[in-house]
Amino acid sequence: MKRVKVSNNVIRRLPRYLRKLDELSESGVDKISSRQLGELLGLTSSQVRQDFNCFGEFGQQGYGYRVSALREQIAGILGMDRGFSAILIGVGNIGRALMENFCFGDWGVKLAAAFDVKPALIGTQYKGVPIRSIEELGRYLQENPVDIAVLTVPKAAAMGVTETLTAHGIDAIWNFTNVELTAPNSSTLVENVHFSDSLLSLSYFVAERRDEQAAKQAKEEK
Amino acid sequence: MKRVKVSNNVIRRLPRYLRKLDELSESGVDKISSRQLGELLGLTSSQVRQDFNCFGEFGQQGYGYRVSALREQIAGILGMDRGFSAILIGVGNIGRALMENFCFGDWGVKLAAAFDVKPALIGTQYKGVPIRSIEELGRYLQENPVDIAVLTVPKAAAMGVTETLTAHGIDAIWNFTNVELTAPNSSTLVENVHFSDSLLSLSYFVAERRDEQAAKQAKEEK
Repeated sequence: MKRVKVSNNVIRRLPRYLRKLDELSESGVDKISSRQLGELLGLTSSQVRQDFNCFGEFGQQGYGYRVSALREQIAGILGMDRGFSAILIGVGNIGRALMENFCFGDWGVKLAAAFDVKPALIGTQYKGVPIRSIEELGRYLQENPVDIAVLTVPKAAAMGVTETLTAHGIDAIWNFTNVELTAPNSSTLVENVHFSDSLLSLSYFVAERRDEQAAKQAKEEK
Repeated sequence: MKRVKVSNNVIRRLPRYLRKLDELSESGVDKISSRQLGELLGLTSSQVRQDFNCFGEFGQQGYGYRVSALREQIAGILGMDRGFSAILIGVGNIGRALMENFCFGDWGVKLAAAFDVKPALIGTQYKGVPIRSIEELGRYLQENPVDIAVLTVPKAAAMGVTETLTAHGIDAIWNFTNVELTAPNSSTLVENVHFSDSLLSLSYFVAERRDEQAAKQAKEEK
């Protein structure tokens, strides 16, 4: 595939398109215009067309997009057809929540193994995924191709595990630890899931709204 | 507080500043320059200064920022001192993971109650939070002030619960359901946590890198 440098904002919108196209497909919709797709996602039709134009021509002027074909093209751009392999480190609450509810396979990623320190877990399986000792992590990485490491260890363990991962050539970390893995290795791709950032952004908007409401009320009472 | 419209990108950076300042504080750092803070977060010093200037003057020219004072100011901007109250709906894996590991109180939010449909859970407590029947949700909202609803129900229940919430005046939803709650009510603030979006963004970058590596190798083999 021809790769051009695409802005981060466009890349972040691709999974949203994919999600919406899956919903449309489930509802039996075959065809959609850029205007309709934009309306469903709060985007303008020209933004939708521009986003897709980053990757070549997808639709047909005056006809719109075929939902299933567009879905497959976006899935391809997102690497969902590459057969990426992942491991998960830290089988605590959030690790288990992911293993149980998050269907890695739906997104083209195979969760091949999990690692933990607890003796009671080691050697068992959870939702079909074998749990190994964290001490085997280095050897496992030497012997198996791993594209993505899912980091769900406690905060205190985050940096140590990250060093093991990068030392063994892992170049992509999906980080749930709330620790800023500042350039563990300059070439490591880190995608952070910071729940607190998300909640605090929401908190900001709620505070802003409460201020507006208070200001409005004060004005009315004058 | 004087509220000016601030760009979404600035708002999204504020929690990252907060997190870094907490780390610095824990390491005993009292003072930091915009250049140093920027380096820690991959930002330029001028971007750091511009971000803070959105909210007034924080630092002192040539002196830098006092870590604790800056931290408090950002916490205030994010609404952490407002005493926001939250409820959680859906005590499944992800709901439990949040109740167990995510310290709402650390971010100034009080998790007051949880709701579920399972009879075995109703009337019990989890991590000190009482679990009530989802059937009581409407009445609870009438009788208690709630700023934020944390939505951790299964996908199929997402829209129904959202309608109950917005009908009772809830204007902020922290959405973990992977359902796009497209304008449930035009005035509802929705903050989505879409794990799949995050993984797929990472997958995109991994695919891009693998293509670059393949291209480089093909060139070397020529």
